[in-house]
Amino acid sequence: MSRLIGVGMGPGDPELVTVKGVNALRGADVVVVPVMDTGERGRAEATVLHYVPEEKVVRVVFALNERSDRARREAAWDAAGERVAGLLARHACVAFATIGDPNVYSTFTYLAQTVAELVPGTVVETVPGITAMQDLAARSGAVLTEGTEPLTLVPVTAGPAVLKEALNGPGTVVAYKFGRRAREVAEALRDSGRLEGAVWGSALGLPEESIRPAAELDGTPLPYLSTLIAPARRDGGRGSKL
Amino acid sequence: MSRLIGVGMGPGDPELVTVKGVNALRGADVVVVPVMDTGERGRAEATVLHYVPEEKVVRVVFALNERSDRARREAAWDAAGERVAGLLARHACVAFATIGDPNVYSTFTYLAQTVAELVPGTVVETVPGITAMQDLAARSGAVLTEGTEPLTLVPVTAGPAVLKEALNGPGTVVAYKFGRRAREVAEALRDSGRLEGAVWGSALGLPEESIRPAAELDGTPLPYLSTLIAPARRDGGRGSKL
Repeated sequence: MSRLIGVGMGPGDPELVTVKGVNALRGADVVVVPVMDTGERGRAEATVLHYVPEEKVVRVVFALNERSDRARREAAWDAAGERVAGLLARHACVAFATIGDPNVYSTFTYLAQTVAELVPGTVVETVPGITAMQDLAARSGAVLTEGTEPLTLVPVTAGPAVLKEALNGPGTVVAYKFGRRAREVAEALRDSGRLEGAVWGSALGLPEESIRPAAELDGTPLPYLSTLIAPARRDGGRGSKL
Repeated sequence: MSRLIGVGMGPGDPELVTVKGVNALRGADVVVVPVMDTGERGRAEATVLHYVPEEKVVRVVFALNERSDRARREAAWDAAGERVAGLLARHACVAFATIGDPNVYSTFTYLAQTVAELVPGTVVETVPGITAMQDLAARSGAVLTEGTEPLTLVPVTAGPAVLKEALNGPGTVVAYKFGRRAREVAEALRDSGRLEGAVWGSALGLPEESIRPAAELDGTPLPYLSTLIAPARRDGGRGSKL
């Protein structure tokens, strides 16, 4: 029975992979990396290449860019699933490198389902990875949670109502995937009085890294993989250090 | 100016430290580990000792057990802050090892505040760590989030209303710190129809690890550092593999 291991690569800094993740990459027969249909090198691939030789890496195209429609993305997932199923027929252990954590908004979840249907009996495992909100907290000084504060993680793609409801609560709110909806996010922050202390970031750990106070969000579209932290309402105003 | 680095050790498995975390421990002059007032070796210390020699480790007592009252814990934090401030006076770089992530319900947040008051100008940094919810997801097969699902992390110490409100929403709910409140958690899960697919775990990655379907929660007190994942309501019922 072959094993398929989803390995979390963290947000982009190669040092933010766990020791377990590095060992999983090195122990696998092949390491699959998702690449855009443009063919450019993604973060997962760049991180993998810090730890394993290029000969062991298999590039599989996913139409992961924001402009793809659902049908096209699903077709790409199915094709990718078939590629990975083919690899599992020839290898005892296949690793799949995914940015962030394989159980948090990861393509790996869909891939594993497709593969489980194509190759019944495949053993699916995951190795956790550092998420963008954790890296942004560390780099900006914005504490995610303390004491009895709840934390809500909201993909802005869920619609503005979900984000607004979370911002009206007392806890920390993290928004993912806002990209072209930066204006909505900025408005929701202002309307809920949560602009102060909030911070956003993109390309964390990469040369083009950008980390700024959310008050500077002016509605200009941001990279799709942007992250926002609006810290819980706290006495003493401990937001980010920015 | 001395540096104080809060380093996330992950939930207990020594391999779940990041490469950056290992490098931070090895690069520091001393590594502070929090120990219980009973003096027993905690998870942070055990993990640190996989990567640095014992001579470099400074044990500092925190009254971290669940039975300590707030005043006693605060007094312990202040004393610990003074110990660490003393170390910063003699060393250029002091690492503080904390289980999980230093920005998620971590003693490090309070320690850093105390130290910042005692030694103005100290440069405070953090290195993210894998949280218990991520490790439980990986070990149980319960996907944390997919698609547009939100995720809410609730410390049960915030009271049952916060937990119930989260469970009545559509997203994934993670409960932390329930320990003696296991009965309340089980009732809230049942009342909200979220028992199926939910999973809880404790001592993740340690010999006494326990991972079970939440349906087995019968109200018996659990370890304080227990974690529960109630996956989002999904078509196809993708909860844990248990």
